[in-house]
Amino acid sequence: MSVTAAKGFTAAGIAAGIKESGSPDLALVVNNGPRLAAAGVFTANRVKAAPVLWSQQVLKGGQVAAVVLNSGGANACTGPQGFQDTHATAEKAAEVLGVNAAEVAVASTGLIGVRLPMDRLLPGIEKAAADLSPYGGEKAAIAIKTTDTVHKTAVAEGAGWTVGGMAKGAGMLAPGLATMLVVLTTDADLDAPALDAALRDATRTTFDRVDSDGCMSTNDTVLLLASGASGVTPDADAFAEAVRTVCDDLARQLIGDAEGATKDIRIEVTGAATEDDAVEVGRSIARNNLLKCAIHGEDPNWGRVLSAIGTTSAAFEPDRLDVAINGVWVCRDGAAGEDRDLVDMRYREVRITVDLHAGPESAVIWANDLTADYVHENSAYSS
Amino acid sequence: MSVTAAKGFTAAGIAAGIKESGSPDLALVVNNGPRLAAAGVFTANRVKAAPVLWSQQVLKGGQVAAVVLNSGGANACTGPQGFQDTHATAEKAAEVLGVNAAEVAVASTGLIGVRLPMDRLLPGIEKAAADLSPYGGEKAAIAIKTTDTVHKTAVAEGAGWTVGGMAKGAGMLAPGLATMLVVLTTDADLDAPALDAALRDATRTTFDRVDSDGCMSTNDTVLLLASGASGVTPDADAFAEAVRTVCDDLARQLIGDAEGATKDIRIEVTGAATEDDAVEVGRSIARNNLLKCAIHGEDPNWGRVLSAIGTTSAAFEPDRLDVAINGVWVCRDGAAGEDRDLVDMRYREVRITVDLHAGPESAVIWANDLTADYVHENSAYSS
Repeated sequence: MSVTAAKGFTAAGIAAGIKESGSPDLALVVNNGPRLAAAGVFTANRVKAAPVLWSQQVLKGGQVAAVVLNSGGANACTGPQGFQDTHATAEKAAEVLGVNAAEVAVASTGLIGVRLPMDRLLPGIEKAAADLSPYGGEKAAIAIKTTDTVHKTAVAEGAGWTVGGMAKGAGMLAPGLATMLVVLTTDADLDAPALDAALRDATRTTFDRVDSDGCMSTNDTVLLLASGASGVTPDADAFAEAVRTVCDDLARQLIGDAEGATKDIRIEVTGAATEDDAVEVGRSIARNNLLKCAIHGEDPNWGRVLSAIGTTSAAFEPDRLDVAINGVWVCRDGAAGEDRDLVDMRYREVRITVDLHAGPESAVIWANDLTADYVHENSAYSS
Repeated sequence: MSVTAAKGFTAAGIAAGIKESGSPDLALVVNNGPRLAAAGVFTANRVKAAPVLWSQQVLKGGQVAAVVLNSGGANACTGPQGFQDTHATAEKAAEVLGVNAAEVAVASTGLIGVRLPMDRLLPGIEKAAADLSPYGGEKAAIAIKTTDTVHKTAVAEGAGWTVGGMAKGAGMLAPGLATMLVVLTTDADLDAPALDAALRDATRTTFDRVDSDGCMSTNDTVLLLASGASGVTPDADAFAEAVRTVCDDLARQLIGDAEGATKDIRIEVTGAATEDDAVEVGRSIARNNLLKCAIHGEDPNWGRVLSAIGTTSAAFEPDRLDVAINGVWVCRDGAAGEDRDLVDMRYREVRITVDLHAGPESAVIWANDLTADYVHENSAYSS
């Protein structure tokens, strides 16, 4: 399903030879209309990859005819030449597809600081264009994988319309956004501002609240393309809910496939004075390496949760903090509560619940444990 | 050496049975005067251990007659009972030593959330008092070890006066302060405000700039005690320099003994608009797990340095950033610079230099690599 679940889209995923391994590394997603409406959100990192800088410009026009995505190289920190490479990529796709280059978004993922092999990438676009199909969504999702062990797709159905999408991401996953490339498509008949509103609302509480390893990428890109091919203009709330559902599904898949992880940690902060407080506390917990190690060791070490909360500026009193791990309130009023031996941590999902007792707001952040496999995978990535 | 290098101090380190292992776990440092002047700095964590809350009160008086330190338990997140335990510890030491309990500082380190075995700790104070000696500094330093592989002491000599100290700390090391207990002593004849000024100046650029694993403790305590026994009142600058030298020496020893670490990473940020900018950038780099893994793998992955810089609010332009690793400028103007194969990373110390090209300020942050051993050590700590 993926990006071709919605009517009006074709896609392809091929091996262009960008990856030395010969694995698929180039994806093409084409909006065949009648509409070409689009919205996008991008990394909050101030060091932005060339394709991010390019695609931000493209999205200002509110129209995207096609997206070229490659794995095997991030084209980040590659200077003016890197930007020219992205430009040439869009020009090539525009020429092959007969569209406007200013309506071709580009997304790249892989090692930072290395230029892309354009002598392979540009012919790859021709090859991918020849392979475009209304059934190409899975192949496209496979072609954008880097250290992902599985490809990631999701679909939500509305009344006569569909939202589908694909994602890649397994490391450098932290808010604003998680490190990932995501393309969502819909055949709903909506204009760019409507898409933008739905997309920002959805990413704020899904991809922006995934914090696998505290590291923010230079390349994060989430695009939402609408073809209008269903002829249906959905209710704004129903559409927003569908986009959120797909984003949430993909975000969970990112966490579930994070590098080296053995646990998915759901951190719910309740009783916060503000939603920002809840998010700040959740992120601080999500990024605490000692806690992440403890969770890996199936150790319900609530003291490390408290020490992480204590580094935030959120409203709370230390002697009123409650913490539950997998439903057992191991910390009450800032001190030992129920018996920690009651906590069963054998399963992949671990739920940490914090009650700040400072207000009515809450937020959920997803994180992963820290493992020796994460260290191994990331100490040998570029060599 | 250690805390008994300066005249006017006695110390002891004994096994009170707080640790199940039977290793030394209780230290006593006594100021025999004629002065009892003291200053202290404590963790910035809002979740503070009972001994921190107690000692902060003691230090407000500017006088410390004795310090009781224990390993084997942090007495953090232990509620009102934990505070009573600290109070009882100070009372017991006061009784045994014939001093005022309001002038007895207490410091604890170990697992969070568990009460101390007072039936062992209190008799231990009597035992330690009986063992007090002007040569007891090394034993005291040994008794405060937790996961430290070596005990840590340092000394600086002035003109007729001495500053000496001991430290413990190997994990949960992050700014404001690093997780550690430190006691410094001097026989210089100085009052509490003079000590406070020298101590704050020293910790700001030493312990506060150590960031081993991004985790801030609930128990950090750094005390500076002056006996006045030398009869010499040193020049303020000379004294400040001596305190800074001892703090810097101990801070480096903490980094050199960090849990599981194989590399000490010196991150120097230059060309910053403000010192705060330099520190923010340095800390962001110090806490980037992907970079820490890369350094462990001896991979000069400057892209991860840039992606960490990009998450800060410091003044810089992405296309003007320069990064050197061990003296090789692998990144120039935000893109690839000198050949990364020229970087020799075989040694324990790795130097990362960043030039923000945004001003004249700079700062140095020390960090460690992230290793499988760190994960192993911290996933089985409390079990």
